[in-house]
Amino acid sequence: MSGAESPTFGVDLGGTNVRCGVVDRDGVVLREVREPTPLGGDAVVATMAGLVRRLAEDFPEAAAVGVGAAGLVDRDGAVQFAPNIQGLRRAPLRRALEAELGVPVVVDNDANAAAWGEVVHGAAKGALYALVITLGTGIGGGIVARGRVIRGAHGFAAEVGHFQIDPDGPVCACGERGHWESYASGTALGRMGREWAAAGKAPGVLARAGGQVDAVTGVFVGDSAQAGEPDGVALLAEYVDYVAIGLAGLANILDPERIVVSGGLVELGDALFAPLRTAFARRVEGPEYRPEIAIVPAQLGEQAGVIGAAARARDLEAGGSGVWVR
Amino acid sequence: MSGAESPTFGVDLGGTNVRCGVVDRDGVVLREVREPTPLGGDAVVATMAGLVRRLAEDFPEAAAVGVGAAGLVDRDGAVQFAPNIQGLRRAPLRRALEAELGVPVVVDNDANAAAWGEVVHGAAKGALYALVITLGTGIGGGIVARGRVIRGAHGFAAEVGHFQIDPDGPVCACGERGHWESYASGTALGRMGREWAAAGKAPGVLARAGGQVDAVTGVFVGDSAQAGEPDGVALLAEYVDYVAIGLAGLANILDPERIVVSGGLVELGDALFAPLRTAFARRVEGPEYRPEIAIVPAQLGEQAGVIGAAARARDLEAGGSGVWVR
Repeated sequence: MSGAESPTFGVDLGGTNVRCGVVDRDGVVLREVREPTPLGGDAVVATMAGLVRRLAEDFPEAAAVGVGAAGLVDRDGAVQFAPNIQGLRRAPLRRALEAELGVPVVVDNDANAAAWGEVVHGAAKGALYALVITLGTGIGGGIVARGRVIRGAHGFAAEVGHFQIDPDGPVCACGERGHWESYASGTALGRMGREWAAAGKAPGVLARAGGQVDAVTGVFVGDSAQAGEPDGVALLAEYVDYVAIGLAGLANILDPERIVVSGGLVELGDALFAPLRTAFARRVEGPEYRPEIAIVPAQLGEQAGVIGAAARARDLEAGGSGVWVR
Repeated sequence: MSGAESPTFGVDLGGTNVRCGVVDRDGVVLREVREPTPLGGDAVVATMAGLVRRLAEDFPEAAAVGVGAAGLVDRDGAVQFAPNIQGLRRAPLRRALEAELGVPVVVDNDANAAAWGEVVHGAAKGALYALVITLGTGIGGGIVARGRVIRGAHGFAAEVGHFQIDPDGPVCACGERGHWESYASGTALGRMGREWAAAGKAPGVLARAGGQVDAVTGVFVGDSAQAGEPDGVALLAEYVDYVAIGLAGLANILDPERIVVSGGLVELGDALFAPLRTAFARRVEGPEYRPEIAIVPAQLGEQAGVIGAAARARDLEAGGSGVWVR
């Protein structure tokens, strides 16, 4: 029974793990399996195919696969460049996985897939214009315009962490200096925490890390801020202002009605969102002349990639092709 | 004879002048008239109506008006905020002009209108994804995705000059510090020229300005660079790198197939575009993994706003409304 009611497979191909879920029409993950991400394109395809086959034993009615892959994914579903997945260069994942499984496959960027999940089933539901921003190891993003995710001319759009905010800033993973990602990713919060701790400015945070500067991460900063410790609160406020700088720039460029923020930091709740909304309102252009832009937490958490990829796979069932329409 | 072959009116409402043209289906401006921009919303409407009526005497078959206005224009065609037009705040231009003239009117942002002109009749023709960037008093922009200009949730999209590239930079017209516009507008090139001249670093440029530091403008810098004078070339190279920083960020965010650059500086030709293409290729993410993004001069020059606004007016003739579809 493959058809309009059947579930689909969603694969989230990250730098650490390959996750595969079978997802129903309401966006509920019925079951999920995972493996560590192997080295090289062929092994990645074999791992993804193996995970799908395992789930297919119990869900034989699922007959389409969506993949969200961390990297620059072109319109034909080939990963051209994946900075965080070793050995993955110019890898035609869509074609290889279709050949392996014999079912239609669509491959998209992981952040775009996660954004699509939030549009169809989560915090961006109903928004015609939205930004979905993930503050994680780096910064991922999805741009929603006219109710659809914008992928750009070549499928490389929404590399939203990669615009310069300081010419003297640290060198980014991409090689350029002072990109927003270097200041506003989860990784950057940890780095700021270690810098403050090393300078003796973050006693509360440092104590949480057992007094070891090298052990300080963003989690300890967040915990300290949430507990109301002055150093944690001040550190998080500085970090939040960097987040706001980038969000304000993106809002000036794209004019969303809603900004959905995801990533582990979202668990901080109001300790993150209250100062973020204040800083954003101070920095966005003409706030007194425009409707308020809502800044809200993502709803799908770590499953957004799997759910969004599975939702993308549904597009294939009406005879659609895994090659994107621009 | 109003119909599919008749010309339309295009109005370009700027900080200095109101220009009105009657434009045929090939994007040719058949005639143009202008007046200085008056003070306040009522006077602006009266001036625009007067210009349209003057042209309508000889072109009675034209029966729809498009306006491109410098400022934040909402979906209903009201100018909410216009930093460079005195006294224009929350002005319902579309409704007022329709009431005055008795014909359908659409009002859009001037940069969006100019971008639409380049899409329909100029350098962005045929591009599904493009950026149209005007380096002038400030930086204006139009974002083309799926072959249409993206206006955002409230009509405020493409304020592309307003993202921070340096936290220690000069204060922007919008009140924020270190925005791209402060470094890469035509105005910024003149300021850089005066700074270099005052520091004794730009003898060739200064000589062209009659030895008066205060008289240095971007035009003198451009002339000096085009003549191959070392100071002019070095100054323009520094400026071009700022332009490239912003264009690379926007390209990473939006993945256009083409970037169209307009503004007076475009007349410098290869003296501008050759170093700009080099700097851009160095700064955009993953240039070895993505198709080349063409950077080309605009084709419609100063008439882009009038031509694009007139092209927008054609959408009204099939019974379309001047209220934009999001």
